[in-house]
Amino acid sequence: MALTQRNYRDSVHNMIPVNTDTDEGKLIVSLIDSAEFQRLRRIRQLGLAYFAYQSAEHSRFTHSLGAFHLASRMIARLSLGYNIPENVQTAVRVAALLHDLGHGPFSHVIESILGFHHEEFTIAAVLSDDTEVGRLLRAYSPNLPEDVASIIRGDFRPLALAQLVSSQLDVDRMDYLLRDSLMTGAKYGIFDLEWIIKSVEIDEAEDRLYISAAGIYAVEDYLQARYYMYRQVYFHRTLRSAEAILRVLINRALELYRGGKLAWTGPLTPMETVLAGTKLSLKDHLELDDADVMFSIKQWKHSDDPILADLSHRFLDRRLFKAFDINVPDERREEFIGACRDVVAKAGFDPAYYLVEDRAGNAPYSFYSNDSSDVKNLIFVEYGVPKPALCEISSISAAVRGLQEGYRIDRICFPAELKTEMAELCHTY
Amino acid sequence: MALTQRNYRDSVHNMIPVNTDTDEGKLIVSLIDSAEFQRLRRIRQLGLAYFAYQSAEHSRFTHSLGAFHLASRMIARLSLGYNIPENVQTAVRVAALLHDLGHGPFSHVIESILGFHHEEFTIAAVLSDDTEVGRLLRAYSPNLPEDVASIIRGDFRPLALAQLVSSQLDVDRMDYLLRDSLMTGAKYGIFDLEWIIKSVEIDEAEDRLYISAAGIYAVEDYLQARYYMYRQVYFHRTLRSAEAILRVLINRALELYRGGKLAWTGPLTPMETVLAGTKLSLKDHLELDDADVMFSIKQWKHSDDPILADLSHRFLDRRLFKAFDINVPDERREEFIGACRDVVAKAGFDPAYYLVEDRAGNAPYSFYSNDSSDVKNLIFVEYGVPKPALCEISSISAAVRGLQEGYRIDRICFPAELKTEMAELCHTY
Amino acid sequence: MALTQRNYRDSVHNMIPVNTDTDEGKLIVSLIDSAEFQRLRRIRQLGLAYFAYQSAEHSRFTHSLGAFHLASRMIARLSLGYNIPENVQTAVRVAALLHDLGHGPFSHVIESILGFHHEEFTIAAVLSDDTEVGRLLRAYSPNLPEDVASIIRGDFRPLALAQLVSSQLDVDRMDYLLRDSLMTGAKYGIFDLEWIIKSVEIDEAEDRLYISAAGIYAVEDYLQARYYMYRQVYFHRTLRSAEAILRVLINRALELYRGGKLAWTGPLTPMETVLAGTKLSLKDHLELDDADVMFSIKQWKHSDDPILADLSHRFLDRRLFKAFDINVPDERREEFIGACRDVVAKAGFDPAYYLVEDRAGNAPYSFYSNDSSDVKNLIFVEYGVPKPALCEISSISAAVRGLQEGYRIDRICFPAELKTEMAELCHTY
Amino acid sequence: MALTQRNYRDSVHNMIPVNTDTDEGKLIVSLIDSAEFQRLRRIRQLGLAYFAYQSAEHSRFTHSLGAFHLASRMIARLSLGYNIPENVQTAVRVAALLHDLGHGPFSHVIESILGFHHEEFTIAAVLSDDTEVGRLLRAYSPNLPEDVASIIRGDFRPLALAQLVSSQLDVDRMDYLLRDSLMTGAKYGIFDLEWIIKSVEIDEAEDRLYISAAGIYAVEDYLQARYYMYRQVYFHRTLRSAEAILRVLINRALELYRGGKLAWTGPLTPMETVLAGTKLSLKDHLELDDADVMFSIKQWKHSDDPILADLSHRFLDRRLFKAFDINVPDERREEFIGACRDVVAKAGFDPAYYLVEDRAGNAPYSFYSNDSSDVKNLIFVEYGVPKPALCEISSISAAVRGLQEGYRIDRICFPAELKTEMAELCHTY
Repeated sequence: MALTQRNYRDSVHNMIPVNTDTDEGKLIVSLIDSAEFQRLRRIRQLGLAYFAYQSAEHSRFTHSLGAFHLASRMIARLSLGYNIPENVQTAVRVAALLHDLGHGPFSHVIESILGFHHEEFTIAAVLSDDTEVGRLLRAYSPNLPEDVASIIRGDFRPLALAQLVSSQLDVDRMDYLLRDSLMTGAKYGIFDLEWIIKSVEIDEAEDRLYISAAGIYAVEDYLQARYYMYRQVYFHRTLRSAEAILRVLINRALELYRGGKLAWTGPLTPMETVLAGTKLSLKDHLELDDADVMFSIKQWKHSDDPILADLSHRFLDRRLFKAFDINVPDERREEFIGACRDVVAKAGFDPAYYLVEDRAGNAPYSFYSNDSSDVKNLIFVEYGVPKPALCEISSISAAVRGLQEGYRIDRICFPAELKTEMAELCHTY
Repeated sequence: MALTQRNYRDSVHNMIPVNTDTDEGKLIVSLIDSAEFQRLRRIRQLGLAYFAYQSAEHSRFTHSLGAFHLASRMIARLSLGYNIPENVQTAVRVAALLHDLGHGPFSHVIESILGFHHEEFTIAAVLSDDTEVGRLLRAYSPNLPEDVASIIRGDFRPLALAQLVSSQLDVDRMDYLLRDSLMTGAKYGIFDLEWIIKSVEIDEAEDRLYISAAGIYAVEDYLQARYYMYRQVYFHRTLRSAEAILRVLINRALELYRGGKLAWTGPLTPMETVLAGTKLSLKDHLELDDADVMFSIKQWKHSDDPILADLSHRFLDRRLFKAFDINVPDERREEFIGACRDVVAKAGFDPAYYLVEDRAGNAPYSFYSNDSSDVKNLIFVEYGVPKPALCEISSISAAVRGLQEGYRIDRICFPAELKTEMAELCHTY
Repeated sequence: MALTQRNYRDSVHNMIPVNTDTDEGKLIVSLIDSAEFQRLRRIRQLGLAYFAYQSAEHSRFTHSLGAFHLASRMIARLSLGYNIPENVQTAVRVAALLHDLGHGPFSHVIESILGFHHEEFTIAAVLSDDTEVGRLLRAYSPNLPEDVASIIRGDFRPLALAQLVSSQLDVDRMDYLLRDSLMTGAKYGIFDLEWIIKSVEIDEAEDRLYISAAGIYAVEDYLQARYYMYRQVYFHRTLRSAEAILRVLINRALELYRGGKLAWTGPLTPMETVLAGTKLSLKDHLELDDADVMFSIKQWKHSDDPILADLSHRFLDRRLFKAFDINVPDERREEFIGACRDVVAKAGFDPAYYLVEDRAGNAPYSFYSNDSSDVKNLIFVEYGVPKPALCEISSISAAVRGLQEGYRIDRICFPAELKTEMAELCHTY
Repeated sequence: MALTQRNYRDSVHNMIPVNTDTDEGKLIVSLIDSAEFQRLRRIRQLGLAYFAYQSAEHSRFTHSLGAFHLASRMIARLSLGYNIPENVQTAVRVAALLHDLGHGPFSHVIESILGFHHEEFTIAAVLSDDTEVGRLLRAYSPNLPEDVASIIRGDFRPLALAQLVSSQLDVDRMDYLLRDSLMTGAKYGIFDLEWIIKSVEIDEAEDRLYISAAGIYAVEDYLQARYYMYRQVYFHRTLRSAEAILRVLINRALELYRGGKLAWTGPLTPMETVLAGTKLSLKDHLELDDADVMFSIKQWKHSDDPILADLSHRFLDRRLFKAFDINVPDERREEFIGACRDVVAKAGFDPAYYLVEDRAGNAPYSFYSNDSSDVKNLIFVEYGVPKPALCEISSISAAVRGLQEGYRIDRICFPAELKTEMAELCHTY
C-alpha cells in the first residue's frame, strides 16, 4: 500500500520523513504544527551571528526538526542491536524535537539580563495544560510529558537513551554543528556524522552510550569541529560585539522604562513585561519572538533619549563596537579599565553604555572537558586489541587533550570611533 | 605587501572578497554598510516559502551580495577578452549589488495590494540625495547614480554589460537559483555556473551577450533549473496558499482601518501608511521590513475583529488554506466559483476573505520564452560547425522548446476545515 | 548487542553497510570477495572517458556496489508498504550487485569486434558451477542462481521487483548517473535520488513500478540528467574518438595475428584468444581485464608493423583522432566519404585504419522513448487531482517530450594532422 | 575577443582552465600531452588503498593537474600583493605540474625493494634531452629545466615561492588531502582551502611564506586533516596489509628470477629489469606503469612456484594478510617474532614470505613536527594584537601540539587462516 508520509525538505539532512500512518507520526506532525513550535520559526538559531556570517539566518525551528531527525536515525540504528521500549523511543524523539521550545529571542543576551534559563520554559511548556504542546503530549500518553521533561532535565532513566538528547555527543550539538557550518559558510563544523551514527552503542551494564572502536577518529574529529566552531563562530569578535551593543541597549531601555522615561504607548505586547524587568509568564514568554525585539529597537531609533536612539541606530545599521583583547596582568586590570573608561568619557560617551567588558571561558558546555563529575559529560570509546575496554576519550587521545588546554575571551568593546585612542592606550599597558 | 580585503563568508559562494585597497572596493563596503542595504537583512528573500520549505529563511541581503559576487566574476572573465571601461565595470557591479534595494517585506503580496513595483523604489533610492546609498554613489562619481539606475531600468548602453544585471541570463537569476536550491533543500535549481561563466562572450557588433558553442548544454540545464524551481518552489501550493492568507489578512486590516475600526495606537511606524493604503514615501518604504508586518500581525491576533484575529492566527500558527486545482471549462467557471462561495458562506465564513482564486501563468519572467520583442529577453548561443552563427536558443534546442509549452496555476484556496465539502463540489464539475 | 557490520566507504553514497549477522549479509560479502567480482576492480566503468574527463577513472567494482546499495534502499522503502518475500528481496539485491559481472575491458569496442554481449557472460557466470559466484549462490539456495539470471534477463516475475534492477528507472542507471557525474566533474547527471526513492510504489494490479504524484518532477529531472550525460559525457567527441582509435588498433592486431605476423611470444593469456578472434570461454573472459589490453598495447607500441606501432602510440600518448560532424545529404554521402578517403590516402595513411565513421543514435537505451512495446521501458507516474491515474510520463510532460526529438552522432574521425585539409573538404560539401 | 582556453574538468576543483593564448599556456598543454605525463594516468595515486577504500581509484595524473591548479591560484593571490617575476611564476607552476613525474607503479613498495626515490627520476626527466618534457622545457627557456629541478630539490631561491611546491603547506599536500578525501569517501581530509589561499603571504625579509592572523584556524584545521588522513587512510590496516603481500610477492619473484627459475618468456618489458633487481634506466622507468605489474602478477598466478602462485592469488583476489598490533616490550620482541614464525611455519607456510613486520612512525613527512632544522618544514603564522609577530604554529597552538605526541605503527601480518593461533599467541605476551 502506498505510504502516507510528511516530508520536510531540509538544507542539511535533505529530507526529514515522518510516517503519518502511525499514532506517533501523527503526534509529531501535530507538535510541529502547534503554535508554540511554529513560534520557533521567528527566532534565529544563532541570534546575531549574521553580523559576522551574513548567511547564518536560520531559525530554531529548522534546527529542532534536524535534532528530531537525528534522534530518529540514532534510535533506528540502536534498535538493530538493542531492545528499546516503544514509549522510551517516543519520549526520546519528542524530547529531541522540543528541546529548544523555551528559547526566546536573542537568548544569550536577554536571558542574562532577565535572569532565567530557557530550559525552565521548555519544561514548563511541556508539562503545562495551557499549551497546545502540553495537551497533545498528555492526550497521547499520560506519562509522556514527564518523560520528555526528565529527558531534558537529565534525570531520565535509562540514562543511555536520554544521552541521545542531552550529553556531550547529543543530537542537539550534532545538528547545530552541521547546520551552523553550512549556514555560516565556515566549514569547520563538518564531521563524520554517518560514521558516528554507525558507531554508537549502549553499555547496558553502566547505562551509558559509547562509541565502538572504529569510531574513535570520528569522535576526535567531532570534538575538533566543536572547538573550531566555538573559536570561529560562536566566539567571533563581531558577533560578541553585536551582543554587547544589544546588551547595553536593552539595559538602557529598561532603565528608561523604570524611570518612567520610556513610554510604551503601543499595543500591549510581552515586550512591556521585558522592559519592566519582571519575569515573564509562560504565556508571555511563548508570545515573544525576534519580531518584538526588532520592532522595539526600530521604534527606539527615533527615541528622544540620545543614548537609546544612538545604540538602536548602531545595532540596526551595523555600526558595531570594536573589540580589543585585554592583555594586562590581573593586578593592573582595574587601572586599565579605568583608563579605558576615561578615554570613552572624554570623547563624550557614557562609559556605562559605551564600554563593555566581554569575558567568556571554556566552560564544559563549550568545549569537551574530562574533569566532570557528571558522567553525562564524558565520552567513552572502546579501545585496545585484543582486550578492548571502554575508556574516557581524552585518556587515550592526545589530539583531544590538545583541545583541552583551554581558550578564553577577555575583550573590551567600545565605539569604533575611538579605535586610535584605545589602541594607543593598549600599547602603554 | 599583505592585502587588505573584506571577506564575506557565504553559504553558496563560500567567500565573497572585496579588496579594500581600491576606491571602488571602499565604495562597495560603504554601500553594504549603509542603513538602506542593512535593511535587506530584515527582509526574507523568499517571503513565505519557509511554510513549504522550512529552511528557506534567507534574506535579500545575502542574495544581493551573491549577485554582486557573480557580477564581479563575470566581469573578471569578460575582461580577459574584451576591453571594458573602469566606470562601466563599477556601474555594473554596483547595480548588481543594489538591484533589490527597493524590495519591501512580502513584496509579492504587498506590492499588488498597494500597487507599486519595487524597482521604482530601488531607482529612487539610488538617485536620491536623502539616502546614504545615493550620497555615496554621487560622491564617488557624479554619473554613477544615473548609470546604476539605467542598468536597472534596462536602458543602459552598452546593453551587453547591462545584460549581466538584467536579462534572461543575469546574475540575479543565477544567484537566486543556486541560493534558493541550497536553502530549500530542493536540488532542482543547481546548474553548471562555472561553465556558464567560462562560456559567456560579448557580441560587439550587435551589443549583446552570447554563449560560446561549448556552453549550450549548460544554458539548457540552467533553463531547466529555472523551470523546476518555478514548479517546485515558487509556485508551490503551500507557499501560494500562505500568500493568499496574507493577502486577505492585509485587505481586512486595510478595510478596518479605513472604516476607523482598526486603531493603530502604537508608536508611529510606516505600517500606518500601509494601512492607509496610500503610497509610501521613499523614506517610509526604506524603514519598512518583515518585523513591522510580523509585529502587526501578532497584534492583530488579539484583535476584536474576529476575521482579522482568525486570519492572523492562521497565518502565524500555519493553519494555511487548502488549495484545489480548478478544472472547469471557462463557461462554467463563474457558476463553479459561485458554488464554492456558497459552501464557504454556508460554513459561516465570509467568502470575501475565505475564498481566494489563485491564478498565475508562465509569464516570460518566470520561464524562458522566445516570443519576445525585447532582445534582452532572448538568449543567444553559438551554433554550427564549421560555420558557427549566433542562434536564439529555442530555435536549436528541442529540450528548451519542451519547456515552453507552458504551465499555469489556477487554484481555489479555502479553509482546510472545508476540504471534504469542497472535494465533493469539485467532483460534480 | 553491538552490531556486526561491514561498511564500504563510497565517494557517492558515503557508506554502504552490509550486516554480517545475517546469512544474506554473509552471502553478499562472500560474493564481493569472490575472484570474479574482484576482477571488476580492474575494469574501468567508463572505459576511455578519462581521455575527455581526466578524473573519470572509477571501476565497475564501485559502481556495482553502488547499484547493490540502491537496491537495498529501494527494497527497504517498498517494504514499508508492500509485502515482499525474503527470497525475492535477496534475488533482487544480488542481481543488482552482479549485474555487470560479465563486463570485459573496454567493452563498447571489444564486444562489437568480437561480437558478444556482456550480459550473456554475466548470466553464464551466475549459473555456472565453475565460478565462485555460481557456487556461492547455489549453496545459499538452489533457486537463487536462476532467479538472479532471470532478473538480469528481464523475465523474472513479479516484474515490478525485477524493474528495480532492469528498467528505465533502475538502480544501475541511478548509480551510474550520480557516480559518473561526480567523477567526471560534470554536474549534469545529478538528480533528486532521495525524492525518487521516497516516491516509488508498486502497481500490484499491473505488476509494475510507478512513481507517486509528488515525484513527477524528480522523474523529469532524472530523465534530463540522463539526456545531458549522454550528450556531454557518453557521446563526447574525445571519448568517441579514443574509442575509434582503439577499434582500428585492435582490428589491426587481429589482422596481423591472423596473417601470422603478430607473434604473441609472451606467456599465455586470454589476449591470445582475443587476437584469434574466437569467442572467449567463460573462464578466459573472467580472466581478462584492462591490464591485459593496456599491457598488449604497450608492447605493440614497439611493434615492427608501423601501423600497429603508430596507432598504439597515438592511443597511449593521447594523440587522438580529430572528429568532424558529417553534414552532407544522404545521396552525396558515399561521394563525401570517398573524398575523405582520398585525403587520408594522399597523406600516406591507410584509410582502412585512419578514417573512421562514427555513428550513433538515440536508441531507447540511451534516452527515454515512449514508442516501446516493452512495458519495462516505460515510466508510469500518478497524475491528476482529484482522480489520479497512472500515465506514461511523456504523455503528460512537455519537458520529457522535448527530450524525445532525438539526437544522433554522425562523425568522421581522422588523424589531427589532416585537420586543415579535411576542413577544406567539408566546406566544399 | 573570445578566449581560447583548455578546460580540464575535475572532480575536486571542478574546472582547471589553461589559457592557450599565451606561450606559457601552450607549454603547459604540451607538457600535459607529453608521453611521460600521460603515463601518470596509468599509475594510481594511492596504490593499493582501493583494497581499503574501494573508490580510491584515481591516478597521479589527476592529482598532478590539481597541484598545478592550486599553484596557479596561489600565485594569482600572491601577485595581488607581491611582485613575482614571470619566469619564477612559470617555474613554480611547471614544478607543481611535474612534481610526481618520476613516480612509478606502487612506489611505496617497489622503491623500497629496488632502492631508489622517485624524486631522482622526476629531476632526471626534467633535465633530460631524451624526454619530451625535457625538450619542451628547454625549448621554452634554457633555464627552465634547472629552475624546475631546483624547486623540486628544494634549493631554489627565493625559497618562499619554492615553498608553494615543496613545504609543509604545499600544493601537493593540499591537493592530495582534498582529492583522497573525496575519493575514499572519508571526509577527514577536507580543510578550508579558500581561507588558506586568501591568507598566504610572503615574509620578504626572511624569504618564507607565512599565514596572516585570520588564517590560523584554517592551518590548525589543515594539520588535523593530515593527521586523520594518515591514521584513517594512509596507515590503514588493510592498505598496509595489501602492501605487505605485494612486497613479499615481488621479493619472491626476484628471488626466483635470480635463481633462473622465473623465465620471463614474454616480450621485452621494463619488468624484466625490475626482476633483475638492477636500477632502471630513465627510459625504462618512464615506460613502467601499473599495467606491467598487474599483468605480471596475473601471469604469476599460474606459476609453477606454489609460493609465487599463492601470493599472486591472494593479491589479485583480495585474500589479504591479517595484521595484529605488536604490544610486547622491546626485550621480548625477538622472542615474540620467533614464536610467530613458529606458528606460521607449523602451518606449512614459509615465514620468509608469510610473516611480515610492518613498522612506520610519525616522520616529519607524515605529520607536522616542529623539531626540524629545515625552515621549509615549519609553518609560520602571524600572531598577537596589537603587535603581531611571526610564530611557528605549534608554539602558539595547543591543538597542534596535541597532534605531535606521535603515532606509530607496529604490526605483524600473516595469513588470515592463522588468525586464531596468532590471537592465542598474542594473549600469552
